[in-house]
Amino acid sequence: MSELTIWTLDWVPEGPRGFVRDLRLRWACEEAGLRYAVRTVAFEDRETNHLAQQPFGQVPFLKDEGIEIFESGACLLHLARKNDRLLPRDPAGAAATVQWTIAALNSIEMVTVPWWFLKVTGGENDDLTGWMGKRLDQLERVLGEREWLAAGRFTVADLLMADVLRVAKVRAFGHRPATEAYVRRVTERPAFKKARADQIGHFAAADRKRAGEGSN
Amino acid sequence: MSELTIWTLDWVPEGPRGFVRDLRLRWACEEAGLRYAVRTVAFEDRETNHLAQQPFGQVPFLKDEGIEIFESGACLLHLARKNDRLLPRDPAGAAATVQWTIAALNSIEMVTVPWWFLKVTGGENDDLTGWMGKRLDQLERVLGEREWLAAGRFTVADLLMADVLRVAKVRAFGHRPATEAYVRRVTERPAFKKARADQIGHFAAADRKRAGEGSN
Repeated sequence: MSELTIWTLDWVPEGPRGFVRDLRLRWACEEAGLRYAVRTVAFEDRETNHLAQQPFGQVPFLKDEGIEIFESGACLLHLARKNDRLLPRDPAGAAATVQWTIAALNSIEMVTVPWWFLKVTGGENDDLTGWMGKRLDQLERVLGEREWLAAGRFTVADLLMADVLRVAKVRAFGHRPATEAYVRRVTERPAFKKARADQIGHFAAADRKRAGEGSN
Repeated sequence: MSELTIWTLDWVPEGPRGFVRDLRLRWACEEAGLRYAVRTVAFEDRETNHLAQQPFGQVPFLKDEGIEIFESGACLLHLARKNDRLLPRDPAGAAATVQWTIAALNSIEMVTVPWWFLKVTGGENDDLTGWMGKRLDQLERVLGEREWLAAGRFTVADLLMADVLRVAKVRAFGHRPATEAYVRRVTERPAFKKARADQIGHFAAADRKRAGEGSN
């Protein structure tokens, strides 16, 4: 039987648990009713031990029969095309969904990830923070007018946008009530909760395995 | 007769000419043999005068019969699906092409655009420069092994990746001969040269119109 396989790391420290991007793929599979297996590459030497599968040394990547795909955004579009639960079939709805999926990656995450990177490395920059604030204000205006980004219903664009906002922890950044409510609405979905719990469980099991190995 | 319409600005200063992202859409249409018209929104008040069409106040956006799409990456995927010149029809080739299109947006441009932003605003940051260097080294390794990113031939992924590298002017950043040769190979295509010349001509015509209005 053919099966989707999501690849992630075998272990990560506490901090990123619940945020590693295989969560996006687990979540999409849960929403779309797709069965999947999870396999791993080693956390140690993770930047170089799987370059043949992911040339930037990152996770996740996806295998679907003969097809291998990296980039969480590309994996999501691939999964979303399997049925209409995440991507409407009508051309206008599909185009709007792809548009907002790309907007999450290239208009929002393009500023939130560098903002987060500079914050973590101690190089916070007021101009970049201002740029991010402007983008988030523009998104707040959109989310103040409607419940979902595309096609009048939950799509893969909402899955990705909510995750981008959640990962960057920008919910805590400024007063943007429509964005707050949106992230809450999307992350209250059972499929998100299951995907998050499964990822946390995966890494917790790795802790127990490590502890067991240590006691031998 | 139905017609594709690419929307851009009515005028920009000299600096960005040849780099405004409507070029990506013109180029894709030229490669795919698609007829298109160009329409404009005003440069003045550009951040707020077309929010109904582009909520981040940017160009380009695309109209194709009843469908409107913003985000250059999403517009490119839409155009690429019209025939097989930019996007292979076989599932593995299509998946690899979408994957590398997303990689251009979310693994490369996510670092090159903020790097450029910090450079322009006088906030250059060594950690971010190091991050970009790492990503470009990883891409250099890929481009050292093959001529095109996906499916063994030129696709929309090459169009976008070469434009990302060209816009960020990262060709001048470090010694990466395979990347240099790749950008040269892609931008030597007649469709790129026509798209670039047409964009520059569009803005030059706007100069002449402005000058004419000024002399009245």
